[in-house]
Amino acid sequence: MIDVHFPQVERLVLDLDGLADLVDSSRPGWSRVAMTEVDTQSRYWVAERMRAEGLDVRVDGIGNVIGTLRGRGSRRKAIVVGSHTDTVDGGGRYDGIVGVVGGLEVVRLIRESGIQLEHDLQIVDFYNEEVNRFELSCLGSRAMAGTLTASHLATTDDRGRTLGDTLSAAGWDPQLDQTRWADDEVLGFLELHVEQGPVLERQGLPLGVVTSICGISRFRALFSGQRDHAGTTPMTSRHDAGCAAAGVVLAVEEIASSAEQAVGTVGSVTFTPEATSVVTESALLTAEFRSPDEGWFTLAREQIAEAAATQSARRGLTHSLEWSPWERPTAMDPRLSGIIGTSIRQLGHPAAQLYSGAGHDGVQMARLGPVGMIFIPSVGGRSHCPEEFTDSKQIAVGVHALAQSVVNLDQEGLS
Amino acid sequence: MIDVHFPQVERLVLDLDGLADLVDSSRPGWSRVAMTEVDTQSRYWVAERMRAEGLDVRVDGIGNVIGTLRGRGSRRKAIVVGSHTDTVDGGGRYDGIVGVVGGLEVVRLIRESGIQLEHDLQIVDFYNEEVNRFELSCLGSRAMAGTLTASHLATTDDRGRTLGDTLSAAGWDPQLDQTRWADDEVLGFLELHVEQGPVLERQGLPLGVVTSICGISRFRALFSGQRDHAGTTPMTSRHDAGCAAAGVVLAVEEIASSAEQAVGTVGSVTFTPEATSVVTESALLTAEFRSPDEGWFTLAREQIAEAAATQSARRGLTHSLEWSPWERPTAMDPRLSGIIGTSIRQLGHPAAQLYSGAGHDGVQMARLGPVGMIFIPSVGGRSHCPEEFTDSKQIAVGVHALAQSVVNLDQEGLS
Repeated sequence: MIDVHFPQVERLVLDLDGLADLVDSSRPGWSRVAMTEVDTQSRYWVAERMRAEGLDVRVDGIGNVIGTLRGRGSRRKAIVVGSHTDTVDGGGRYDGIVGVVGGLEVVRLIRESGIQLEHDLQIVDFYNEEVNRFELSCLGSRAMAGTLTASHLATTDDRGRTLGDTLSAAGWDPQLDQTRWADDEVLGFLELHVEQGPVLERQGLPLGVVTSICGISRFRALFSGQRDHAGTTPMTSRHDAGCAAAGVVLAVEEIASSAEQAVGTVGSVTFTPEATSVVTESALLTAEFRSPDEGWFTLAREQIAEAAATQSARRGLTHSLEWSPWERPTAMDPRLSGIIGTSIRQLGHPAAQLYSGAGHDGVQMARLGPVGMIFIPSVGGRSHCPEEFTDSKQIAVGVHALAQSVVNLDQEGLS
Repeated sequence: MIDVHFPQVERLVLDLDGLADLVDSSRPGWSRVAMTEVDTQSRYWVAERMRAEGLDVRVDGIGNVIGTLRGRGSRRKAIVVGSHTDTVDGGGRYDGIVGVVGGLEVVRLIRESGIQLEHDLQIVDFYNEEVNRFELSCLGSRAMAGTLTASHLATTDDRGRTLGDTLSAAGWDPQLDQTRWADDEVLGFLELHVEQGPVLERQGLPLGVVTSICGISRFRALFSGQRDHAGTTPMTSRHDAGCAAAGVVLAVEEIASSAEQAVGTVGSVTFTPEATSVVTESALLTAEFRSPDEGWFTLAREQIAEAAATQSARRGLTHSLEWSPWERPTAMDPRLSGIIGTSIRQLGHPAAQLYSGAGHDGVQMARLGPVGMIFIPSVGGRSHCPEEFTDSKQIAVGVHALAQSVVNLDQEGLS
């Protein structure tokens, strides 16, 4: 094994600060939402930084910024390192960003450590990882993996504008056949990311090897009862849809809490009408479950169906449950996770395992090749908010592990 | 006792139909909302119908239409019979209306029965009984009872327009010192109204003597937790305000259901933010309790406080409970209820007792004198909706009881 140098924290901070300056100052936090002007600006800033590090840079039709450090071999497969620089509205300074500026530092470390890679190393700033207003995420990695379709581009926002037109207006030209990568280009995809949860911090761990990215299953439950006068209708004569919805809110909490590895969240409950003087005629609930355990979802869906039926029957309601097409859990490649674990231990750290509750570009990249992820702690587990924070030294430790993993993958390949 | 004739159903239907024609045809159901043009029209229609029955008619500054049948005596106190002709938006054809057209029929019945009353009989179509967009109800009876104040008139709607200006624009001139009645004018106030609930129909009863009008106590509960990433925050690390609100929805249902005479209704639950991908940071709930039992409200408030505290503590939240100024239950006058009961039995019907879950002008009129109410069944207990229905013959039975009660009150007075 060849050890890479420890990252220079100052250089990381400089790049983090550079991106922190490129935000929409009219919005709270550090907002750099995809398809806004400041996001386009920042992508060209990243491209410029890549060029300054001597990479061959291209920006593809959908806005992915890809910088290549040529390997000395003539291998077709490349090692790909990347993350994203777009944020949620009102987001923080680290989510996605550490994986992109970390990629730049990896290039510098490899060069300064006197290492010449066999494979090409591609640093990617994926376009629009966060869920956009078309309710679609990971546009860039989907385009690369060939899972972004013309029907996605035809999706409209609440003003009736299509995603395709919005991308064009933002300066991109999403030619889907040209953004798609071939199936045999990726030796391995590695992403460094903040955990966005409290697990590593609580256990005092500097690094985590991600075992899988959670599956997500979302549903809407609609209860229909009877609109009655709230003063004159005795409790025994009511068909109150709102109470049934409340029962299912608690069921979501209970079902997820009793699982070993799962979370469940109710996003909204909407009563119709919204008046204390009227018994609620209908109530709509939106919720989601996440778990790395594919089999568990079957159980959760059964339990929700039972809870909804019980709540409904108790009050003489009708109800419907509508499950959206779900995202299955994406397992990280065990060989790549093995290399990451070895690299982490090699640098003197414990190689703890955890799963990702958040979605990542790795879900899409898994279609192009093996995927592995490294997590670093998030203070208080906070993310998608201005309070999001990870100490620069902890980021440097993560970048160190990322660089060592790249070098080890380059040397050993996957077997 | 002098028996009055049985009402002529055809005449009642004619007046009901006359009012059913005076509605806002752009709205669903039979909408005659106070302060609209059609409501003003219908008030002059009612005044005209009163004049046709030989009553002395005046329309006061706030739109109360008052028709007087002079008694032969020189008694200062009058018997007052009334209800309202305004409706909720999308309302029905009976709520309030049966008490006004019933009043007209009472005048006819008394005349045709050859009865001359000792006391003046005043038939009142109260202005704006339903809750208006200024969140105020019973404007007319408040103005008569002296509880409508200048600060009420200064209340603004969501466009910033005052109630006073809106009344003026509708053609009224609310001079509060002139609309107020003296404290010694009312011998008794009698109101015939549809039950708006299912009790009489379910028990197969044609009539009910109202014992009291429910008190109403409304509250808002606000739970504050922490906005966290719904994928990455384990269930054990969450501070989910939405789940606590759901727990209180069920507590409202449970607390009211376990009471002997009470209802509890949650009007709305609002999560912030409304996204399945974010743990709910805050949740606001609005609810109300109603009961004829003044003492029960103390218990209900304690139980809600305990439920909110439990739900909050379980999830590490903060919370606040804000109770609006409440309306106490209004007991009907036992002497007047006695006369109503006697009159009902005299006509060959059982005199069942029940309480009113809805508010009525009687709450205000109780400040001016003894109040009594007669309920007739509502099919399916439905009200405030186009499906609201009571058979004309059942209305006639109610009018019969009302007329007999007027005659008996006139003869016997209250002792």
